[in-house]
Amino acid sequence: MHRDDCILCKIATGQVGVTKVLEDDVCVAFLDIGPLAEGHVLLVPKAHAETIDQLSGDQAAAMLRHLPALVAAVRRATGCEGLNVLQNNGRVAHQAVMHVHVHIIPRRGGDEFYFNWPAGKYPPGRAEALAEQIKAHLG
Amino acid sequence: MHRDDCILCKIATGQVGVTKVLEDDVCVAFLDIGPLAEGHVLLVPKAHAETIDQLSGDQAAAMLRHLPALVAAVRRATGCEGLNVLQNNGRVAHQAVMHVHVHIIPRRGGDEFYFNWPAGKYPPGRAEALAEQIKAHLG
Repeated sequence: MHRDDCILCKIATGQVGVTKVLEDDVCVAFLDIGPLAEGHVLLVPKAHAETIDQLSGDQAAAMLRHLPALVAAVRRATGCEGLNVLQNNGRVAHQAVMHVHVHIIPRRGGDEFYFNWPAGKYPPGRAEALAEQIKAHLG
Repeated sequence: MHRDDCILCKIATGQVGVTKVLEDDVCVAFLDIGPLAEGHVLLVPKAHAETIDQLSGDQAAAMLRHLPALVAAVRRATGCEGLNVLQNNGRVAHQAVMHVHVHIIPRRGGDEFYFNWPAGKYPPGRAEALAEQIKAHLG
């Protein structure tokens, strides 16, 4: 359930201290020590899992049911204009710590966090073929 | 519950067709027609809410319990190396359609989606003060 070499497991078990904002049996939320903005919060499952697809549906639900209240509280506490909820899976997706964590990132006009949006387009039939493959894996 | 002028409400009610991969009473998931990568999926609550903090905890849990299975299925169907789960709240946070939607974005080395990570640092005492304010709003 916990890994000795995982910083988020150590935080989950209280071996490493953080500035917590919420905690229950399944998850803990605290201020990221390297914030992209004031009030940047991490929501983390206590059980060790590298990526979100290693959680069960019940584990995801138990943790992510806190998202609305956390986003609302960060919004009110910081007075931010918007927020990104971002959860990265894999090094290629910018995951630096290999234990699931959800970023809640307050946003303001002119802030420094940036992402592009290089939207593409499917050739005819491709989306339908992909959807069939995804549905097959959803069982 | 639904808005006549909202494209995601029209998708939720079946008035506008999409390439669905999953649907139940509370949510629908389908392929984004302007994908950042092949297999880019949107997970959307059927009830209209602009931002995630307008959902109840139960609504969030009922929708987001599908994330692990969806991420796993997109991973297997596309053979991607990683994935970002991204949910934008507010124009400043890159929200273009004002009905909650969660992006599942497959990633590969050398792809075109990019975000920076301008991490900062809190002066002494600031994180603790912010955490108290967030906790106060969590009630």
